[in-house]
Amino acid sequence: METHSNLTTCGFFITFEGIDGSGKSVQAQRLSDRLSQSGFEVSLIRDPGGPPISESIRSLLLDRTLHAMTPLTELFLYEAARSQLVFETILPRLRSGLIVICDRFFDSTSAYQGYGRSLPLDKILMINEMACRSLRPHRTYILDISTDESRRRRRSAGLIDDRMENQEDRFYRKVRDGYLNLGKQNPNRIMVLDGTKSISFLEQEILKDTLRCMDRLHPNHFIQKKTGREQ
Amino acid sequence: METHSNLTTCGFFITFEGIDGSGKSVQAQRLSDRLSQSGFEVSLIRDPGGPPISESIRSLLLDRTLHAMTPLTELFLYEAARSQLVFETILPRLRSGLIVICDRFFDSTSAYQGYGRSLPLDKILMINEMACRSLRPHRTYILDISTDESRRRRRSAGLIDDRMENQEDRFYRKVRDGYLNLGKQNPNRIMVLDGTKSISFLEQEILKDTLRCMDRLHPNHFIQKKTGREQ
Repeated sequence: METHSNLTTCGFFITFEGIDGSGKSVQAQRLSDRLSQSGFEVSLIRDPGGPPISESIRSLLLDRTLHAMTPLTELFLYEAARSQLVFETILPRLRSGLIVICDRFFDSTSAYQGYGRSLPLDKILMINEMACRSLRPHRTYILDISTDESRRRRRSAGLIDDRMENQEDRFYRKVRDGYLNLGKQNPNRIMVLDGTKSISFLEQEILKDTLRCMDRLHPNHFIQKKTGREQ
Repeated sequence: METHSNLTTCGFFITFEGIDGSGKSVQAQRLSDRLSQSGFEVSLIRDPGGPPISESIRSLLLDRTLHAMTPLTELFLYEAARSQLVFETILPRLRSGLIVICDRFFDSTSAYQGYGRSLPLDKILMINEMACRSLRPHRTYILDISTDESRRRRRSAGLIDDRMENQEDRFYRKVRDGYLNLGKQNPNRIMVLDGTKSISFLEQEILKDTLRCMDRLHPNHFIQKKTGREQ
């Protein structure tokens, strides 16, 4: 699979994944802050989201009055939002040499719509590739927590609907297993972390790993950039 | 390709296609009126459109402020709207034995996003099939007009932007050629009609053909139904 490496030689693309309550958004923010503090140019975004078109699609996806939405419709809406985000935001920023950190990306679709909603995974992978113009993250962090832990965290955040709880548990179990499978299938790209560790422990682990991966991909570029910034 | 014939043995699914200004919406309405007057139960719908979710997506697609929308994003939005329309509207109505007439359907995506915008046609066909759960129209009418005629009609309807005219002509030429190719590739399903003929001539031709096709598919069902209604 083409990785657009010709287009992104100067940039670095990181995604965060995990079931709801896993702490991925916190870690995405922390990594962005730490890299910025170190002098890197960082762009923190979320999928679905970003350009006005993608934010409009996000609003549709989160509109609770549209409760009859089928998993297939969801799938295509996520891909529509993502394809605009890739074209309008991610690719230009990578070409400019930025580090782009994205809260969720195509692995969410594989995990939620594929494993969770049982849509055919081979077709999802093909559609993901098409929507992303073959762009793939350089590094992906999956924050792994159990469905029990997810439920505890979502309840304490007031995000849980008790009537749906059993159904949601089954769903989240499938999504979590999906993420773990994706981790096994993509060991070079994906790092699975124990999401029950402390926020600061995870922050350190992820920062260390990111710096190592960036150095491996662009040994000179990021060191020069960092040095330049620190002068 | 599976056609859901087990699900739709009592219904009949007709789609109208053509470039803008071809007169397909007028003919869809006329056929619906004529069949209703003859005692058939008819449902006239449009794609994108129908269920609240699909109408919301239609609004996004027609929102001129979102002018930066890429062809890929368009493709996925059309498929999202269509997949909800098929699930929520078309399949249930066909199962109930209705004649469903749809103003545009998946051939529009092949013609506009595939031939017109040069997205890969093989992937579009696969995505169309997925979004439609393998449902295919029993009969499709393409109203064929030249791009000159399309421009004349769109201009007289105040639908033309002169700045875009040359670009639009090239685009519509590709879409028209796409429709003609689709007609050649699906001779059993698609009937191509000369859209410059008079409205009433086309109306008669289409009605005759529809009745012939329905009789061929369900020889007893529609005759009984019609007789029952006329008593």
